[in-house]
Amino acid sequence: MILGRVVGRLWAARQAAGLTGRKLLLVRPETATGDVSPRLIVAVDGLAAGPGDRVLVAHGSRVRDLTVGADVADKDIIVGIVDDSALERSSS
Amino acid sequence: MILGRVVGRLWAARQAAGLTGRKLLLVRPETATGDVSPRLIVAVDGLAAGPGDRVLVAHGSRVRDLTVGADVADKDIIVGIVDDSALERSSS
Amino acid sequence: MILGRVVGRLWAARQAAGLTGRKLLLVRPETATGDVSPRLIVAVDGLAAGPGDRVLVAHGSRVRDLTVGADVADKDIIVGIVDDSALERSSS
Amino acid sequence: MILGRVVGRLWAARQAAGLTGRKLLLVRPETATGDVSPRLIVAVDGLAAGPGDRVLVAHGSRVRDLTVGADVADKDIIVGIVDDSALERSSS
Amino acid sequence: MILGRVVGRLWAARQAAGLTGRKLLLVRPETATGDVSPRLIVAVDGLAAGPGDRVLVAHGSRVRDLTVGADVADKDIIVGIVDDSALERSSS
Repeated sequence: MILGRVVGRLWAARQAAGLTGRKLLLVRPETATGDVSPRLIVAVDGLAAGPGDRVLVAHGSRVRDLTVGADVADKDIIVGIVDDSALERSSS
Repeated sequence: MILGRVVGRLWAARQAAGLTGRKLLLVRPETATGDVSPRLIVAVDGLAAGPGDRVLVAHGSRVRDLTVGADVADKDIIVGIVDDSALERSSS
Repeated sequence: MILGRVVGRLWAARQAAGLTGRKLLLVRPETATGDVSPRLIVAVDGLAAGPGDRVLVAHGSRVRDLTVGADVADKDIIVGIVDDSALERSSS
Repeated sequence: MILGRVVGRLWAARQAAGLTGRKLLLVRPETATGDVSPRLIVAVDGLAAGPGDRVLVAHGSRVRDLTVGADVADKDIIVGIVDDSALERSSS
Repeated sequence: MILGRVVGRLWAARQAAGLTGRKLLLVRPETATGDVSPRLIVAVDGLAAGPGDRVLVAHGSRVRDLTVGADVADKDIIVGIVDDSALERSSS
């Protein structure tokens, strides 16, 4: 999984049937030093996440089946929302 | 999924049977700041996308099965077309 | 597999059912020169690893099935803990 | 899929049974600006490609099954050969 | 597949059952110019490779099934050993 920040949302004008009605969020991965990466991931949300939220994005066919459903045409899925206070960094 | 721009098209002179008749587009991933990445992806199109379009590219065997068909010899698939006005970036 | 260091732990405020009760660790991959990468991976732990541990993280659906269980909504799994003395680098 | 250039060939002195008799080519991915990347991929060829050819390399278990066969111990497969004149870049 | 150099070996103090008795090697991918990458991969060896060997590392569940066995908790597998004289680079 990656840890990231929700930085936006998008809607498709035309889309595969497997994305109809799905909420798509823009996520920037977080680096080990707490910065956001320049990389952008579009993930399917099933947890009511929103802009500014720190989220966990998992990747995989079975992750999708277990969460948003086997008929979704994507396998980057938001599987957790993490409060900023619920992350402990060690110094090592 | 990644968000990207269609920057071209290609035709194969010789190809695996699983690509015959498939439309192949060149896509450059978009970064979090809205720039295009130097990376190039070749994706199978089933949505009538074309050069200049902003698209969603999903990756996966089942994504392919759900969209362009299980007999396609690739798993990078264009699953959405996104109008420029249909993307909201938040400031966080 | 990648070799990495556990640099922290996190808890999700809201999560997919497939992560309930799972221990999630932050891991930084190690480079060939022994440095840690700026990249951050969140992995499911089933070996009682903790901050500072050097770990092996494997990725895959079946790796998950063989270790933490098929109902876990992630496929980055801690599959080994490596003592610092149990790694031999050759000079070539 | 990636687009790349065949830059060489290799033979294994010892190999898994699933590679016996397979032709292995060295491929450098091409970037969006037409340069070759420093990255090197070894792909199984079933299309009689050779050094200098511009090729499409697809990745995946089922891609392999559809092309070179399910018993091949690799899933980076050359699935197309692209003439230099058969690629159109748009300016956007 | 990637081409790489074996640069070391490691033993896990604690490990998932699926790694018990498996030989784990450290591999650095080779770039197109023949340099080694800073990236480090840990691969399961079933070919009696050793430090200094140039190897092919394939990735995938079925690659593992075809080589070291379906019960191995990793899918980066050494599938070939390449003599330095058995690699031809073309100039294109």
